Amino acid sequence: MKTEPITGSGAEAFHRMGSRALHKYDEFVDLLVGAGIEDGQTVVDLCCGSGELEIILSSRFPSLNLIGVDLSEDMVRIARGYAAEEGKTVEFRYGDAQLLAGMEDLVGKADLVVSRHAFHRLTRLPAGFATMLSLVKPGGAILNCSFLHLSDFDEPEFRTWLQFLTGGRWDPEMQVAWALAHHHAPRLQDYHEALAQAVGETPVSEQRIWVDNQGYGVSTVKCFARRAAA
Amino acid sequence: MKTEPITGSGAEAFHRMGSRALHKYDEFVDLLVGAGIEDGQTVVDLCCGSGELEIILSSRFPSLNLIGVDLSEDMVRIARGYAAEEGKTVEFRYGDAQLLAGMEDLVGKADLVVSRHAFHRLTRLPAGFATMLSLVKPGGAILNCSFLHLSDFDEPEFRTWLQFLTGGRWDPEMQVAWALAHHHAPRLQDYHEALAQAVGETPVSEQRIWVDNQGYGVSTVKCFARRAAA
Repeated sequence: MKTEPITGSGAEAFHRMGSRALHKYDEFVDLLVGAGIEDGQTVVDLCCGSGELEIILSSRFPSLNLIGVDLSEDMVRIARGYAAEEGKTVEFRYGDAQLLAGMEDLVGKADLVVSRHAFHRLTRLPAGFATMLSLVKPGGAILNCSFLHLSDFDEPEFRTWLQFLTGGRWDPEMQVAWALAHHHAPRLQDYHEALAQAVGETPVSEQRIWVDNQGYGVSTVKCFARRAAA
Repeated sequence: MKTEPITGSGAEAFHRMGSRALHKYDEFVDLLVGAGIEDGQTVVDLCCGSGELEIILSSRFPSLNLIGVDLSEDMVRIARGYAAEEGKTVEFRYGDAQLLAGMEDLVGKADLVVSRHAFHRLTRLPAGFATMLSLVKPGGAILNCSFLHLSDFDEPEFRTWLQFLTGGRWDPEMQVAWALAHHHAPRLQDYHEALAQAVGETPVSEQRIWVDNQGYGVSTVKCFARRAAA
């Protein structure tokens, strides 16, 4: 389940679903605005999937230097095709968020390193945060938004989750994938420990972890940190 | 959620569902046979709900002295009506499985004390096991079958749970109730600790806790113990 690339028909299904739900990214983009995103910056998106966030960001900030990285070669291929169709200039790379391999040229260069709805799949969550903090320049920020284990949902959150799971018209494969992602997701405490470990290696001036349902309708955990100025 | 009686339309819905699925009790009855149930014995069923198990047991063992106990006056009323319709002689009482109040006359009198699909709702699980062991006579047995927290499901078990949740034609209220019951259910470790605590007060000659999907299709925890002979 964990840290396996999403390939083949699974990747196609993610893209079909994601590209039809671009409005669901609005509040995540608001968070990036809050974190200081500005046109002209370098932004790295780890586990970018089929590139929906890149399409949105490059529409809103046409001069971003935007690099999407994903563990799935199928996702990278789909993302490149999607950006070409949309006439956007985005770089997509194959890469593992838990390693710097293939991203050495970006170390310390990004104004913002983001990841959306992916880090719950990592086998080594601290390594994911370590990569984010390695890529960001001093004074830049990292922002992750990902799933929480069902154990961390209180009853209203669990009811919302249930309604989401049972209320919509799901592709059956996606419904199972979504529910399993929550079943295997880290606990809130795991996110705290992972970020704390990464921050131990690359000092930050701010850090914050919180849970809300902004931008999705189901509770997700947000992990923000700003790398200490040089 | 926990240890609140199931009342009104909820109780009616449980009865509708339970009385249409009597075959789902077969493997639980097999467990009671394995535990030594015989016609003529005294059997207490804690949290008996609308009395489905009583209908089944009194059909198969016509001379059982059968007492069903439930925290919901609505359930007790429904169970009495159901047994009357079916022409069965069963005693139903209002009572809390976590207290002996109203069951004082049964202390040390039962050959078998059982509970099915209810103990996951208890606030004080050790008190539930303590009641079971108080009611059973020396040499008699207790057997509980109830839900596990979703955290204790491995991936195949979670997939089965998901299929059960999303695959059937549910009354929407029951679908939510069923999923929430799993969300609030104790962990396997909690069952172990609760039984160990009760056994510390009333010694047993055998005890066993295991998880399987017998009799239900979704994993449940079974807790068995035999009170030490006098």
